[in-house]
Amino acid sequence: MRISTLSIGDELICGQLTDTNAGTIAARLLTEGLRVQRHLTVGDSEPDIIGALSDLGRISDAIIVTGGLGPTADDLTSRAAARATGRRLVIHEEARSHVRLMSGKLQSLIVCPLSDKQAMIPTKSVLIPNPNGTACGFHFMHNGCFMFFMPGVPSEMVVMLRDTVIPFVMERVPRKRIIRTFSINLFGPCEAEVDELLLGIARVEQGLTLGICVTFPWMKVTLRVEADSEDAAANLLAPAVLQVRERLKEYCFSSGNISMDETVAELFRNGCLTLSLAESCSGGFIAKRITDIPGSSQYFCEGLVTYSNEAKTRLLGVSGDVLNSSGAVSAECASAMAKGARLASGSDLGLAVTGIAGPDGGNDDKPVGTVFISLAAPDGCWTKRFQFSGCREEVRIMTAWTSLDWLRRYLLKKV
Amino acid sequence: MRISTLSIGDELICGQLTDTNAGTIAARLLTEGLRVQRHLTVGDSEPDIIGALSDLGRISDAIIVTGGLGPTADDLTSRAAARATGRRLVIHEEARSHVRLMSGKLQSLIVCPLSDKQAMIPTKSVLIPNPNGTACGFHFMHNGCFMFFMPGVPSEMVVMLRDTVIPFVMERVPRKRIIRTFSINLFGPCEAEVDELLLGIARVEQGLTLGICVTFPWMKVTLRVEADSEDAAANLLAPAVLQVRERLKEYCFSSGNISMDETVAELFRNGCLTLSLAESCSGGFIAKRITDIPGSSQYFCEGLVTYSNEAKTRLLGVSGDVLNSSGAVSAECASAMAKGARLASGSDLGLAVTGIAGPDGGNDDKPVGTVFISLAAPDGCWTKRFQFSGCREEVRIMTAWTSLDWLRRYLLKKV
Repeated sequence: MRISTLSIGDELICGQLTDTNAGTIAARLLTEGLRVQRHLTVGDSEPDIIGALSDLGRISDAIIVTGGLGPTADDLTSRAAARATGRRLVIHEEARSHVRLMSGKLQSLIVCPLSDKQAMIPTKSVLIPNPNGTACGFHFMHNGCFMFFMPGVPSEMVVMLRDTVIPFVMERVPRKRIIRTFSINLFGPCEAEVDELLLGIARVEQGLTLGICVTFPWMKVTLRVEADSEDAAANLLAPAVLQVRERLKEYCFSSGNISMDETVAELFRNGCLTLSLAESCSGGFIAKRITDIPGSSQYFCEGLVTYSNEAKTRLLGVSGDVLNSSGAVSAECASAMAKGARLASGSDLGLAVTGIAGPDGGNDDKPVGTVFISLAAPDGCWTKRFQFSGCREEVRIMTAWTSLDWLRRYLLKKV
Repeated sequence: MRISTLSIGDELICGQLTDTNAGTIAARLLTEGLRVQRHLTVGDSEPDIIGALSDLGRISDAIIVTGGLGPTADDLTSRAAARATGRRLVIHEEARSHVRLMSGKLQSLIVCPLSDKQAMIPTKSVLIPNPNGTACGFHFMHNGCFMFFMPGVPSEMVVMLRDTVIPFVMERVPRKRIIRTFSINLFGPCEAEVDELLLGIARVEQGLTLGICVTFPWMKVTLRVEADSEDAAANLLAPAVLQVRERLKEYCFSSGNISMDETVAELFRNGCLTLSLAESCSGGFIAKRITDIPGSSQYFCEGLVTYSNEAKTRLLGVSGDVLNSSGAVSAECASAMAKGARLASGSDLGLAVTGIAGPDGGNDDKPVGTVFISLAAPDGCWTKRFQFSGCREEVRIMTAWTSLDWLRRYLLKKV
């Protein structure tokens, strides 16, 4: 089944608002084994909407449209849908009752002539109930193409998609091919390296594809298999997943939607170890990510953002000798900070970072992007110098990611 | 000029990654008075890319394409662009030198046969320089339509757009109406309140429109004027900007693209005051945002992420009495933390937050979302209880924003 999506709205086409509906619909359909082929966005312009419906109608078996069903004058989708398909726009009694009921419930607008606008639906349409808002959706078939229209508010749309659109579509999908995906998340290597490591795993002719998606600074490798049966899909997918894991080894930090932060949190929970942080150039970013995870108070004792040398000495016990001879950005200072954080809080692990995030402060010896990370643990203290590239934000992101990855690798061996 | 954008990538069409490039391009063009008419997304499929280029080519004077120029096998844009327009794909010597130079610079990949792929460009193309990555862009004209191809990495694309694509397009735009915009950023009120406060400012019939864009938890009000001359535009825009400012008063924190964090940083720089933080439920998020700004070491002394009661006592001097009688989430504890942070570091200001971010830890008296913020300054100490709604992430975002807004409001009066 060839499926397209169409998002309608001036705020989308002008870049004032990022469209998330298209992605939500695509992801939801993909779990059912259906792939969106085209996604189109147009503004609140009747000719543009009519053009979009007619162009997409020619190449699609179904079009899922969101946006432009609101009560205001710039909401033109219903009228455009009617014109594009030679229908009339009429008051739909059920839709009108719904608008009035919901308007009262939401206490958001007095029932005025305007809101009857949301009850104007193209003839020969079936309503798509919207339990969370005033705008009903509707759908009909035109020239062999199913056209679904829903409001653009994500929280309303997603329920209508789940309860009406997807079940309706799935009933009409001819003999379904089974589609299964598995994704593995990794941190460390560059895209070309991953590409080379994974050469030969995909078997396109058998329906097994492999995609690499880079989301700085990490990557997602997704295996996708299309087969006639669950068994056939599993038989192709399982060994491929194993191969990917074997080749990427400790670069893999999780699978599916599990983030690096959640992975580290899970390891801390299982390992019953506690953590303190001493951050200089990352300025609280690592503490923020650790505490993003609910329940982190179980293992996270404290984080010290020591920007000044005075704070490094007072809070972490970094000696004046170290600061004078090696400087605040040095392996010596990093390890003193890590040990100091561990000692002061009595935690099992102390992780420290110090570096130059930029844009200023770099020199020939220690250019912008120079970062020292140190991990103090009961069984030793490890410190390493890194040279990250990019702007301040990128250096800080890489610093936080690399620190979390260090914790992960340490905990993996211990837990 | 009819402009379309095309984003290419399986991760986009499958909903694994949200496309931000289309919005960036549209917003950037809009400030030049140009409007994107259609935005299309397709996956990494050669027939789909060819179909998209040919369909958009028929209705557009320019197509701006992003994505699919990477080194890996699923990057098909160059080949599809060549096929769609009857060009051959050849090694472009300048592009090859660039790939090799950048590969070395980024230290990210060995020059291997793979990377020559990024030097394969359709014949009769002009290169679009990419100072931040290996993939050169390129552009050419086909059947009266300018086609621009850039990599999908946002940080690379945005520079290429600014330095090459937009200047090239603007040179070819026939004399246009003047379009000027001005936006004001605000934090605090809800959308309906802003909507009411700003009633009557827009004068659509004269070409002055007003849009409110909500990006949790802040909003952007954009005034847009279309006129025949710079003078006419200024005469409409300037009084409207004044009106918006007068009505929204201290809700406004900045204009244009200046963030809350930059606003606060600027006030600190001007005021010559220093800051320390004591964070509990925000877990380093405020310190992270303060230190996101280059040069923050001038005024930011230190941040203490005191999750445990023990740390609150040891590092901030919060007394056992306060913790026992009022609890860690209380006005008393918040003000003791703020005063303690100020005292320990010797900074001018101490800001502290303590609260319940959730999902657990709430009770009837102090439900999830209860947050105390306290600001200790030379001229007093202010503490307030807030009740934020939403999930853990939203509570933490609101806590950080409200804290920064407190600092802003305090500094505004002092500076």
